[in-house]
Amino acid sequence: MTFVPPDHPRFLSLMYRERLVEKVKEGVVVLQGLIAHGRGEAFDYILGEQSIPPALEAERVAAAELMLARRPVISVNGNTAALIPRELAELSKLTGAPLEVNLFYRSEERAARIASLLQMHGAEEVLWEPETEIEGLRSERRKVSSRGIAAADVVLVALEDGDRTEALKRLGKRVIAIDLNPFSRTSLTADVTIIDNVVRAVPNIIRFYKEMNEAEAREAVRRFSNEVNLKESIKWIKKWLDQKISELF
Amino acid sequence: MTFVPPDHPRFLSLMYRERLVEKVKEGVVVLQGLIAHGRGEAFDYILGEQSIPPALEAERVAAAELMLARRPVISVNGNTAALIPRELAELSKLTGAPLEVNLFYRSEERAARIASLLQMHGAEEVLWEPETEIEGLRSERRKVSSRGIAAADVVLVALEDGDRTEALKRLGKRVIAIDLNPFSRTSLTADVTIIDNVVRAVPNIIRFYKEMNEAEAREAVRRFSNEVNLKESIKWIKKWLDQKISELF
Repeated sequence: MTFVPPDHPRFLSLMYRERLVEKVKEGVVVLQGLIAHGRGEAFDYILGEQSIPPALEAERVAAAELMLARRPVISVNGNTAALIPRELAELSKLTGAPLEVNLFYRSEERAARIASLLQMHGAEEVLWEPETEIEGLRSERRKVSSRGIAAADVVLVALEDGDRTEALKRLGKRVIAIDLNPFSRTSLTADVTIIDNVVRAVPNIIRFYKEMNEAEAREAVRRFSNEVNLKESIKWIKKWLDQKISELF
Repeated sequence: MTFVPPDHPRFLSLMYRERLVEKVKEGVVVLQGLIAHGRGEAFDYILGEQSIPPALEAERVAAAELMLARRPVISVNGNTAALIPRELAELSKLTGAPLEVNLFYRSEERAARIASLLQMHGAEEVLWEPETEIEGLRSERRKVSSRGIAAADVVLVALEDGDRTEALKRLGKRVIAIDLNPFSRTSLTADVTIIDNVVRAVPNIIRFYKEMNEAEAREAVRRFSNEVNLKESIKWIKKWLDQKISELF
């Protein structure tokens, strides 16, 4: 692993980068996943690498959706498993939502490795051997578990492709998406879009879930507008740009 | 190579992505290079994946700097060699500037592969066996050729790290940087910063070089302010965000 000096201004970001590179070598992350991570890094950068207020609101609503769901499922891909395996396991146990491994670049071996990584970090229910398919999707991501995504009413997805999010919506599921790009099809299609880095978003959802009761959850969902929230996130990017300009020039 | 449908809204971007993934397998691009590419993709996206007017101006000034230089050098890394080998070869022949392979993750084998890729695409003068070092730099990038970067008055760098750009400036060299992040240390340190994708920037520099004479080149350099130009680029990002908001909501 490449040494990152702890006093580097972007230490955390560089550490997560190196972790992903390691996980390519272990067959968990694919090469395209590294490019996707880089895209996320840049969006995170123009958000100031922080959970902005609209993200915190969306994270609280995500916790509420998971609390109110009958059959919630947390969809996991290679990047999220590599970045936050322990946090995913914790969220799964807390909410009773199984973790389902769902991959664009799928192989049995890779799915098994990801499942085993999650289990090593404490996950109890990991679905990784899909035996059915969802309609309207051609990629490998169509392959799902009948005990998981196929039967779910609420699906939490992270770092997602637009095609899959749209397919889940067409099936009538509620989708919570964690995506750093506020303009992606996933962000625009999901019911609750969290514009935040997964490494901050999932711990925040866990914290909000623990603090909340069902009445508060219902109220949070009732008050939430994803469109208003997305617009707020974009305003924060503009604000960051203005601040940078005034700092630098 | 993964098939990308030609009618996909982001066809070109996806093609370049797949090209980089291929070049990892050939030992030209490193895994960290894929993440860096992803970062670039995101910045390119919020510029509308186009050469914005301030980028075109900086590209014309870059052509002028190369024309007026006594010993210009074009520094090449794995990503640029993978993305635009033919264009780099053409710019090198047009301007008389050698291509110098300069790598953060350097191995002899990798440098040789990159040199051979450039030569296969028509490059005539490729320096890839450094025999000296530049001061004030600890990474592998300190290793340079005495016929190339060490002796150069003007260096064109692309997709660069801030440490190297600062070291080149301390040595009194003029630096032309191609970098999609207007806030990077490289962008803020270079004499001429081109906020554009290398796949568009280098062809544009070639075109401007061909259209220009020396008097025009002197005039272009005299009139240019990198700070004003960078601020203009950031304004374009804000404009793009506003346009997206009005399109989407």
